[in-house]
This record gives sequence, structure tokens and C-alpha cells, in this order.
Amino acid sequence: MPSSAFASDNAAPAHPRALEALHAANDGAVMSYGADLITQRAAERVRSTFDSPGADVLFAFTGTGANIIALSAAVRPWHEILCSDVAHSLLDEAGGPVRVSGASLVALPSDDGLIDPALLDRRITRRGEVHHSQPRIVTITQSTENGRVWQPEAITAFVNHAHKLDLLVHVDGSRVANAIAALEVSPLAAVGDADIVTVGGTKNGMLFGDAILVRRPEHFTGIEFVQKQIGHLASKHRYVAAQFDAMLTDGVWLETAAHANAMAQKLSSGLTALGLHLASATDANEVFVDLPADALAAVRQHFAVHVPDPHKPAARFVCSWATTDADVDAALAALAQAKTV
Amino acid sequence: MPSSAFASDNAAPAHPRALEALHAANDGAVMSYGADLITQRAAERVRSTFDSPGADVLFAFTGTGANIIALSAAVRPWHEILCSDVAHSLLDEAGGPVRVSGASLVALPSDDGLIDPALLDRRITRRGEVHHSQPRIVTITQSTENGRVWQPEAITAFVNHAHKLDLLVHVDGSRVANAIAALEVSPLAAVGDADIVTVGGTKNGMLFGDAILVRRPEHFTGIEFVQKQIGHLASKHRYVAAQFDAMLTDGVWLETAAHANAMAQKLSSGLTALGLHLASATDANEVFVDLPADALAAVRQHFAVHVPDPHKPAARFVCSWATTDADVDAALAALAQAKTV
Amino acid sequence: MPSSAFASDNAAPAHPRALEALHAANDGAVMSYGADLITQRAAERVRSTFDSPGADVLFAFTGTGANIIALSAAVRPWHEILCSDVAHSLLDEAGGPVRVSGASLVALPSDDGLIDPALLDRRITRRGEVHHSQPRIVTITQSTENGRVWQPEAITAFVNHAHKLDLLVHVDGSRVANAIAALEVSPLAAVGDADIVTVGGTKNGMLFGDAILVRRPEHFTGIEFVQKQIGHLASKHRYVAAQFDAMLTDGVWLETAAHANAMAQKLSSGLTALGLHLASATDANEVFVDLPADALAAVRQHFAVHVPDPHKPAARFVCSWATTDADVDAALAALAQAKTV
Amino acid sequence: MPSSAFASDNAAPAHPRALEALHAANDGAVMSYGADLITQRAAERVRSTFDSPGADVLFAFTGTGANIIALSAAVRPWHEILCSDVAHSLLDEAGGPVRVSGASLVALPSDDGLIDPALLDRRITRRGEVHHSQPRIVTITQSTENGRVWQPEAITAFVNHAHKLDLLVHVDGSRVANAIAALEVSPLAAVGDADIVTVGGTKNGMLFGDAILVRRPEHFTGIEFVQKQIGHLASKHRYVAAQFDAMLTDGVWLETAAHANAMAQKLSSGLTALGLHLASATDANEVFVDLPADALAAVRQHFAVHVPDPHKPAARFVCSWATTDADVDAALAALAQAKTV
Repeated sequence: MPSSAFASDNAAPAHPRALEALHAANDGAVMSYGADLITQRAAERVRSTFDSPGADVLFAFTGTGANIIALSAAVRPWHEILCSDVAHSLLDEAGGPVRVSGASLVALPSDDGLIDPALLDRRITRRGEVHHSQPRIVTITQSTENGRVWQPEAITAFVNHAHKLDLLVHVDGSRVANAIAALEVSPLAAVGDADIVTVGGTKNGMLFGDAILVRRPEHFTGIEFVQKQIGHLASKHRYVAAQFDAMLTDGVWLETAAHANAMAQKLSSGLTALGLHLASATDANEVFVDLPADALAAVRQHFAVHVPDPHKPAARFVCSWATTDADVDAALAALAQAKTV
Repeated sequence: MPSSAFASDNAAPAHPRALEALHAANDGAVMSYGADLITQRAAERVRSTFDSPGADVLFAFTGTGANIIALSAAVRPWHEILCSDVAHSLLDEAGGPVRVSGASLVALPSDDGLIDPALLDRRITRRGEVHHSQPRIVTITQSTENGRVWQPEAITAFVNHAHKLDLLVHVDGSRVANAIAALEVSPLAAVGDADIVTVGGTKNGMLFGDAILVRRPEHFTGIEFVQKQIGHLASKHRYVAAQFDAMLTDGVWLETAAHANAMAQKLSSGLTALGLHLASATDANEVFVDLPADALAAVRQHFAVHVPDPHKPAARFVCSWATTDADVDAALAALAQAKTV
Repeated sequence: MPSSAFASDNAAPAHPRALEALHAANDGAVMSYGADLITQRAAERVRSTFDSPGADVLFAFTGTGANIIALSAAVRPWHEILCSDVAHSLLDEAGGPVRVSGASLVALPSDDGLIDPALLDRRITRRGEVHHSQPRIVTITQSTENGRVWQPEAITAFVNHAHKLDLLVHVDGSRVANAIAALEVSPLAAVGDADIVTVGGTKNGMLFGDAILVRRPEHFTGIEFVQKQIGHLASKHRYVAAQFDAMLTDGVWLETAAHANAMAQKLSSGLTALGLHLASATDANEVFVDLPADALAAVRQHFAVHVPDPHKPAARFVCSWATTDADVDAALAALAQAKTV
Repeated sequence: MPSSAFASDNAAPAHPRALEALHAANDGAVMSYGADLITQRAAERVRSTFDSPGADVLFAFTGTGANIIALSAAVRPWHEILCSDVAHSLLDEAGGPVRVSGASLVALPSDDGLIDPALLDRRITRRGEVHHSQPRIVTITQSTENGRVWQPEAITAFVNHAHKLDLLVHVDGSRVANAIAALEVSPLAAVGDADIVTVGGTKNGMLFGDAILVRRPEHFTGIEFVQKQIGHLASKHRYVAAQFDAMLTDGVWLETAAHANAMAQKLSSGLTALGLHLASATDANEVFVDLPADALAAVRQHFAVHVPDPHKPAARFVCSWATTDADVDAALAALAQAKTV
């Protein structure tokens, strides 16, 4: 059976700190649904990590759940949610954000998930016209689904421009730690002045769990009901909170992300050295490489890899906190061999 | 601060077996979203536990999530979901089943959650009439939200009668283990010939997780999409599966449930001995006791207890796998004292 | 074939004034979607008829459409819509208000559609609790589906009480003209201080069309989008507007309603004289009479009549602007004969 | 005030035949909700006009309503509806099809609404994959929103190709009469082997009303409930049916459409003669002309014209059954003058 080492960062096991946190939290009876001290502490830690003292913090079990909650709370069914043409919320959530919100999801062309702010103006054309759904929020991903990272100036410019157009901004940060680690800036600098941020846990060493940082709660009235209405208000809430508390303490989450990024860089360099062509720049922990169909098939005998677009022969390798040098070496060996097929 | 020992069975910590299972599962990279061996094994265990070889098994993070997925997959938006007047799906899921399905939820009067099958006939009156939404599925809870257990003959009669009326049947089994343990029958006998069953994990010792046993998959086409669309398809799927695999092995889940039931019996007997009146029979692990407002306030200084209906002065005490004799003794002492207030 | 004369007030033909209005409006090209002078005039007429200078006025093609638009604009999907147990929105709109709004619809017991305001308090119990959907609006019907009329003091007391409980109030006025005519009060007195009113046209002589009087627009933000999103923003808008303008001029709509009421009174008195029992008081233009199954079958050979509840042997006779004395005499003759079956 | 003569075909008044039909239908009481003989006759006429003996026929008040009903009945919320990038259902129904169906609406690039069938293959890539919503139906418009007509061979090829890809096909025929008249083929030849067709009435001389021809009812189970759930089941159903019956008799609807087309041709030729550039070919009754902003402003002093895309200086002139030679001459005069601005 092929190795799952590069299939996704959610193929990785949980980080020891996450498991330890579950043990530590497993102490006697506590109130459910978040009315416990661990939750209080974890929420405060998310808030302070992002320098957002006035923010609300909610937790969801999955990144998909967190995105749906954030987006659905922002809109009424006659609104539009703008996203990039490679957005997870567009391509990999089975239409969940549309089903739950009733609003339309509209894709903008992008450079591997990075959107030119000028494209927003092009879309904002029929404000107030009853025949057309109304743009309300734009969601961007940091780092993007194609492994790119928004530079701090770029994301700031984008968010500010969106605000000027009276759009809210959601950052899907299921891999925001990888972006922060790559940029070596503060978490807040990596998300700009976004109104709401999904903070990924699952892909960065936790067993499960993504947080929702509601930086401007006044625009997301009732968000706690949406969370409840799709079954993401954990009853034994301490277990999701405890993992966040542990991973955000002493920068563990950024160390794990930096490690994943470093492994991706090593893989990326190795691929280039092999004369292979990268389908997208390796800014964070994902590597996309163009591969002829034969080579792809050969590689897949050794490694399960995702092919994002069946019409384009390119494979995705994702590194995680658990990826080892040996894993990368084995992947490069398999690719070297496949290349000669 | 008052003790949470009786606040709910989801106030309890996780059972050691569940935590051990997480550790054992935390071994290297495996494919995500359920394409792993632990999931395969857990699904098979749920299936065989309920003697349902042709069933599909899905997992959700919460009982609310599991109920929403099961009910939404059964209906189109012009259908009706029938339930009891104390159903969790009616009163404690914030309207989630309605929002996600678009269908109407209609309450039937009940005896603490036990519904007279004859009431179904009364509701099935305008079949095929385009002006009226069409009854499609009825959901019952075993054991009920008010701590009652459907006897095997009763649930069989109910399910068969519903089938005769061309209704599907969902059993919300967030506490089905307590019913099975109380009845000392096979799991299947406790749910009758239901078409779909939510099998509770969270309230019976797990950190999180409820399973969905789809006994007649032909009536729930697309259920895996609903699961995905509300963010309940776990990426690191092995962690929810591993807990089910562990707890269903060697009957651990029934031992924990039997213990909870026994503690409830002890509490219930003690209350009666104190001359207090039970608001509902103690068939499983929940005890409901009538308490004047003063007594209730006095008890609440020692124990956090739920008051299901603010208009009725009755408190709920829930026992769990972790409840101790000492906990029950302390509760009885507090109630004895409160009674004299 | 049995006569349709009493099947419903929407079995009646259109009033000559409505048809004439269509002719008069059919004059050259005018802007569509309501940007025309006839619409402006009709909206103003609805507004002034109900002494509501600050109100917005929208039109829908049907009463069901109007109710759905009004209720959906009032709520978010975690809200509850309260209604009576005989409400049209509950029983005869196929779950449309639930599907479109995503909110739950909850029935309150009633006296033929008249609801005791004290029942509202009983329902308002878990405000702000995330596990429970939140009551937001109550809809009542004037005159009710069972032919009863709210007295001005009663409806005022009800609306004020609802407001005190922080509930909005919708009046389904598909037969509000019959109530106004019966009460001989101003239109506003017949609906109290309701926040939004559906003003029926179809059942009172128009070919199609019901108006929505939004008395407190601040609570119904985006209502024009809901209207558009379910296809009720007429492109050739003048034709619905023209009918309202014509029927509301010189009190035509109240004359037609008064006539229908008078015919119902005549029928009702005749039934009582025959020794038959009325299932509901005849306050407006609907008559409900208890009939044994045999008698019902006999009557139905002559007249198509609706039987609201298949479990109760009672038939509904509805009078309209077009009902004649001869119609009533024929109905009474048929009932006299049927009684002896 | 500028003339509305070219603002839209729904700015036109109703055709005398439509009004006469309302009069003729206004005869005594008949059963409501479509259980009347006029409806029966009209449905049969729609069916036979399109040579579709096994089809179901429903009526809606508006084209938006008809599209929403047709599309929503075809899908579950995890499906995708494909459409062109200029589709009315995408741009001019305020997101209604998405809100009501819960499914995603996905735009394909097009040549003024004409879609290359090969683009479908490009979209059908992740069939059966739970992470991605599933393409289920494609909607095309005949004649298109940009005034183009699908040739019979082209639409046949498109529909057949879609069927081969296991997609259903909806034809939005709000202007299908203009296409049929332009093509001089049978109605069926103009829509190919589509599974469901919206047959426009409002834009072609009726006061209101579009029909839904359900050619393959097995794929649209419950469509009558969707119609009811959004308030488009007319109670006084005869009035919408009667208009269809009248207009489809003796080919009136094609004469009106042919006249509108001829007026558009005259206008189009005149524009070309003036040296103006057409933004889209004039295949049916709509004319799109590129106009510099100054010229556009000048024209708008005389004629209200729609500008579909605020970013492109092009105006739309729509001809209708009521457009006269004098109207066209006046428009050409205004344009000649504006050109010199």
C-alpha cells in the first residue's frame, strides 16, 4: 500500500502535546458546552495570540464546519459570498456554505488563490438592485489551497480595499500557522484587519478542531446559533479547547508549522534539482509539481498524492509537523525514478 | 462552585478506554476522511453490534450533528418530520434539523417521550395533498429525554405501525446504551426495525462522537453529502472511529451504561425514601424530581442541575459512567437538607 | 358536477371593477417591476387605507406568497415563528414558510384561530439560550381560517402583549376585508398595531394579488429581496397594482366583503333553523357545520365543500362577493335534504 | 419622461387576446388551484404545442418563479446547477434558485449565452466525490439573454451531450417564442430533447404567467410541492391558464413573437446603417449596441434602456408585440442624434 506521508497534513497523526492536553483535561466533571475554565483559557489564548481583545472565539470540529459557520453568520440569503477560484469553500466543502447560508458563492479568478483587489471593484456593480444578489463578504485563504502565502502588505491592502467597498473579510486560516511561520510576522499581521478568521488546528497537529476568531462580532450576530444548528457546539467542550490551549502555548503551533514548511522547502528544492517543474511556488507546506500521467502513476505506487485538477497532470505533496527528512528523501527517490518512466 | 457531577452525562470526563484508543490510533500517517483501517473496523463493529449486515455506518462529532444528518437525508423540504413533544431534535438543537433540511418538524404529545402509535394515524391525514407538507419520517428517542425506556415490544409495535403508514423511523440513540443495559436485550431489540439509528458515544464515555447506523440506505441517498455539507466528515477520521471500536469491544459501552443506570436507581430510590416525588419514572440514567423553588435553589448551591421546563419546578440529575456512590450520597444529603428549606 | 359556489372564496370569479382596472391599466409601455405610476398610486392607497404613512407596500401574486415573504423577512433561521394550530401558514402552505425562512414554525392552541395572549408567555421561556430556537414573530389571522373575527380590543391586547414580549406581529389578512366589514371599524383598528399585514385581494374579488403592508420596515430589512427571490416581484407590475387601486377606491373591497358576510349570515341562520350545529361561530364569510358522514356525502353531490379535518365530520361553506341569495337557498335545500339521509 | 418602449418586453402592455381570455374565463364559480376545465385545456395545449404527450404542465406567475421551480425540483442541496455566465437565473433572480434549492449555481463561459458543449466535460470531473458538489442539471436560455438563438442542430447537440454526461437539461424559454419564430421550426425543434422547459408568457403579450413543461416528470418528483411552497400555485388558476390557452391558439404567440423579431431586425439594420456597432448579433427581439457614455446619456433622455453591464458601455433595446415602426424610427432618430454628441 502506498505511503500516506504526503497525502495531506490531515493524514498526519496528532502531536504529542495535543494528546497530553486531552489527558490533562480529563479530570472530573465539568460543565458542558463551553461553560468551563479550559474553554475560557483557550478562548483567551486565541484572542491574545491574534492581538484581538474585543473578539469572540468559538470552536468547531473541522475547518469546513468553521468556514460554514463564519460565512453563514455573515450573510442573509440574498447576499453573495466572494471567493477565489481555488477556494476550499468553493471546491471542497460539497456546497455546504451555500446550503447552510442560502447565499450565492461566486468565484473570482486568482493567482493560485491570491486575488487582485481590483477584481473586487469589477464585481461590485449592482449594489442595492433587487434583481441581483448583493456582495457581502469575501473569503480568502492564508496560506492558500495552492500553497501560496499572502504577504502582509498584500493582505492588508486587500482587506482594506474590501472594507472600502463595504465588504466583510473572512480569512480561511486552516493553514494560517504555516503562513505566519513562513512570513515570520505576528499572527495578526498575517491576516490583516480581517473581520473573522478561521484558525486551523486539525492540519497543524491537533486531533480535531478549528477556532473561529470573530474580530468584529457586530457583523456576525447569532453566530453561536449557527454553530449549534449544524452540530458544532461540542458538549464535552474542554477537549477541543484544551488542544488549542496547549498548541498555542509557547509557540508550539508555529514550531510545528515551521517544520512542515522546512520539509516542503527541502522537497521543493529537490524537485527543482531533478529538473521537475513546480506548478505553484512553495511558500508554505504544500508542493505542487507537474507530472506526466505515466510519472504520476509511477509515483502513486509509492505515495498517495492528491491531484487537485483531473485535467492538469500535477500532484500535490503536503508536509506536516510529522514529516521527516527520510520521508522527503523517499519521495524524491520515487520522483527521480518516476521521471525516467 | 457547585459540583457538575449530575449536570449531564456529557459533563463527565472521558473513559480511560476512549483515551487509550486515541493513543493507539496515533500511529503514523493514514489516509484521511475515513479511508483507513480503523474506520473500517469501527464501522463493522457498529454494524455487527446491531446485527445489521447491510447497513452503512457514518460518524459525526455530536449527537445533534448525527440527528441532523439522519433526518435531513430522509426528507425533501416539503416533508414533515414527526417527533415527540420533548424530543432533543425539537427542543435542544436550536432548530438545526429544520434549517438544514428545510422540512417541517411537528411535535406529537407523548408520555415523557413515549408516543402512542395511534397518534400517528391522527397525523397522517392529507397524504398527497399539495397544500400540506407530507409526513415522511418519525423520530423517537431511546432512552427518552425524560429518562424513559421503550420496551422491546412497544418499540417494535411503534416502528411496525409507522412502517405500515409509510413512515420511516429514526431512533435518536444518544443514550441507547442505557436503554440496552436497562432492558438486558440485544441492541437491535432495543431499537426495533428502525430505518436509521443514531448511536451515542459522547454521553457514554467518549470524548466526542456519535455514529449513524443507516439500516436502509436506499431511503437516505446522499447522506454522506449531508454529513460533509455540515462539516461532520472528520478529516482525521481515525480518532472518532477508534473510540467507537474500543468502547464497543467486549461490551465496555454497556458496562458503563449499566453503571450509570445503577447510580440513577440508587439516587431515585433515595429520593423516594426522602418522600420526594419523581417527575418521571427512572428507567435509565436520568432522574427527574419535583422540587419547590426554594428547595431547588438550595440544591443548586451544591449541584448544577438542569431544569428542563422553567414553568415546572423539577430538576434533572443525570448519572454517567463516572458517577460514584459518594456522588449519589452527597446529592441525597443535599436534597434532604433542601427539602427542609 | 357539483356546484363550486361554496367551495372557497377563491372559486368565485373576479369582480367587474378588477377586470375594468386591468383594461384601464393596459395603456402603452410603462416601466416594469413597479417603477410605474399605477403602482405608486396603489401603494399609497394601501398605506392610507390603513393609516400607516410610514409603511412600505409590496405586492405578491398569492396570499401564500405574501405570508412567506412577510415571515421570512422577519426571521433568521434560528428564530421561531409562532402561529395558531389552524393557521394557513401552518396547514395550507405546504411548509413554504419553513422552507424559505429556515426557521421553525410552532403552533399554539387556539379557539378557532383566536389565541389567548397568555399562551405567549408560556412559549417564551428560553430566551438567549443557544440550544433553543428563539421566538421572533407571531402570526395571527384576521378573520381566522375558521371564520372567526378578532374584536378590536382583543387584537390590540394581543399585539401589545406580543410586543411587550419582544415579539413582532404579522396579521395574515387574506380575509381582512371580511373582518373590517363585520366589525365596522377602521382597517387599522381591525389589525391593531401589527408590524406587518398581508392584505388579501384574491379572495375578495381580484383575479390575483395580495399586498404586504410593512408598518415597521426596520424589522423587515431585505424584504424586497425575499419577494424577488421567490418570484413574486411582478414584471408587469401595473396589473396587480391596478386591481388594488380599483378595489380600495370608494370602499368597493368592503362592500364586496360585507356582501359575502351577509350571505354567510343567511346561510348560518338557515342551518341553525334546520337544527344543524355550527362547528364554529359565523363571524365573517365562512360557515362551518357539523355533518354526519352520510349527510356530508349527500351534500357533496350538489356542492363541492371543503372538509378541513378528515377526522371531524364538518363541512365548510365559504361565501364570496359573488354569492347570491339563490345560491344560499339551494345550499339550504340540499342540506335540509341531506339531513334526512 | 423618457419612453419605456424599448426598456423591456415586459414594459409592453398586454395583448388584446390575453385580456379577452380573462373576460371569457370570468364566468361563475369554478374549482380553484387548477381543478378546472380551462386549466385542463391550457395544459393540453402547451403539451401538444411542444409534441410532448407524456409531459406534465404547471403554471407560474413569473419567469423567475418558473425557473426556480424547475431547477429546485431537479436537485438536492449537494447538487450543482450549471448555467451560462449571462443566465437570468444567475444574474437577475437575486439568488432565488440558490436560496430555494440550497444547491450551488455555477457559471460557464459562453458566447452571449450560447455554451460550447465541450465545456461541460471540463466541469464534470469529480463525480461521486463527497467533497465536491455534484453537477445535476444545466440550464440554457432560448433565445438567450443577449438576444442570440440556438440553432436546432446546436441545441440538439448540446442537450444530447449533456444527457450523455448524465446531466438534465432545463431550457429557460421566457423568450422561446421569439426563437421559434426566428428559426421557423417546430417548438420542439427549438428546445431539443430538453427535460424541462419554461415557456414564457409574460414577455410575449400576456399580463402575467409562464408555463413549466415537465417533459420527463420522473426527474422532477415533488415539483408541484415546490410550486406551492413558493406561492406560485394560483388559487384562481383559470386566469393564468386562460391566457396561455388563448395565446397558443391559432399561433397567436408566434405572430406576436415574429413581429417583435421583425422590429428588432429593422432597428438593428438601422443602427448598422448609422455606423454603430452591435454588441451582440440580433437573432431575435433584442438589440445590443455599443455606445460611448455620452451617447448613452443622450439616448436615455428619450428612451429608458437597460445597460446590462455597468462596465461595458452598451445599451439594450427590446422589441415586443406592441413595438411600432414609429417607435423604431424614433429610436433611430435619437441614436443618430446621440452619435453626434
